[in-house]
Amino acid sequence: MLKATAQGIATRERILDAAFDTLRQDGFANTSARAVARRGGFNQALIFYHYGNLIGLLLAAMDRVGEQRRLRYEEVLGGPGNPIEFASRARLLYAEDVDSGHSTVVAELFAASSGNPELREQMLARMKPWLEFTERLLERFLAGSPFASLVDVRAAAGAVLSLYLGMDLLIHLDGDRSRATAMFDAGERLAATVEPLFGGDPR
Amino acid sequence: MLKATAQGIATRERILDAAFDTLRQDGFANTSARAVARRGGFNQALIFYHYGNLIGLLLAAMDRVGEQRRLRYEEVLGGPGNPIEFASRARLLYAEDVDSGHSTVVAELFAASSGNPELREQMLARMKPWLEFTERLLERFLAGSPFASLVDVRAAAGAVLSLYLGMDLLIHLDGDRSRATAMFDAGERLAATVEPLFGGDPR
Repeated sequence: MLKATAQGIATRERILDAAFDTLRQDGFANTSARAVARRGGFNQALIFYHYGNLIGLLLAAMDRVGEQRRLRYEEVLGGPGNPIEFASRARLLYAEDVDSGHSTVVAELFAASSGNPELREQMLARMKPWLEFTERLLERFLAGSPFASLVDVRAAAGAVLSLYLGMDLLIHLDGDRSRATAMFDAGERLAATVEPLFGGDPR
Repeated sequence: MLKATAQGIATRERILDAAFDTLRQDGFANTSARAVARRGGFNQALIFYHYGNLIGLLLAAMDRVGEQRRLRYEEVLGGPGNPIEFASRARLLYAEDVDSGHSTVVAELFAASSGNPELREQMLARMKPWLEFTERLLERFLAGSPFASLVDVRAAAGAVLSLYLGMDLLIHLDGDRSRATAMFDAGERLAATVEPLFGGDPR
């Protein structure tokens, strides 16, 4: 059994950092155990000792940041606010996803999962909490608005996640971040228009 | 110079069929020149003779169906109609994309393009006509509605394409086509709601 010594934890952090940075800088296709070990300056046997295999390591590297991101999404979108405020918070959160490298790592692993059944299963499992979070958010947001009975929350949450992943991958491929900026601008304009239909009270 | 003999055309059709079917059935990761040649029952040297390299062949195989699909989209969405009719036509077109295998081949090549710069450049170039088609469609559709001045057509077309690609890849990964059905149901309900805001005349 592995002992969670301070040194063991430090080693794992170093391996996770190297894996995350390699995925982010070089892409999945160039992220071999050897490339990760070279970047981090450690023996690649440590990857298999601590994470079983390379896919296990890459998922752990994504998860470490992903969990922080989800808590941050819950914090920022969990408070009361009107549609305009929600639209500008969504813009802020996406900018953080980009700056942290999370959006790049998600795009790389999402795309790679098409050709790797083990990765695919794990990536799909990781979408569930995001889908549930989005469903809860939409339910709370629509409550009391004239849209509540119109919107199928499960379908809408699937569309929101698809839009995020599709846009993220498209921006990852062509490097044109102005796509996201234009979409958030449009979202804020739309939010300002529907604003009067939502109650003025904090939700 | 290649002579466009009847036999040459028949050979190319056979190579394109084998490439399309291999991508659709086995995925990009398993689509080698050898696998395509084996499926089609021809010598793999023919691939390089007719298409230069494997990526060139896979793009040609996607394009052959893709061009038919785009003409079909223009035909079906190009006529007059109200929002409800457009929503049900979009559902029909997506069902055809799935049945023809086009949605699978697009999902495979879109995902694979993340790890292949040559493929990425070609895939991005192929999105341009779809973006322009979507922009024209949105412009025509919004004209005369109260949304015309609200919607940034370029941003909206990017969002529509992102949603299509993200949903297509997600369904490709988890095999859950009910996601699309639920979204089209929701789209038709929404269309019925906004219907009165659009003019009753054919557009």
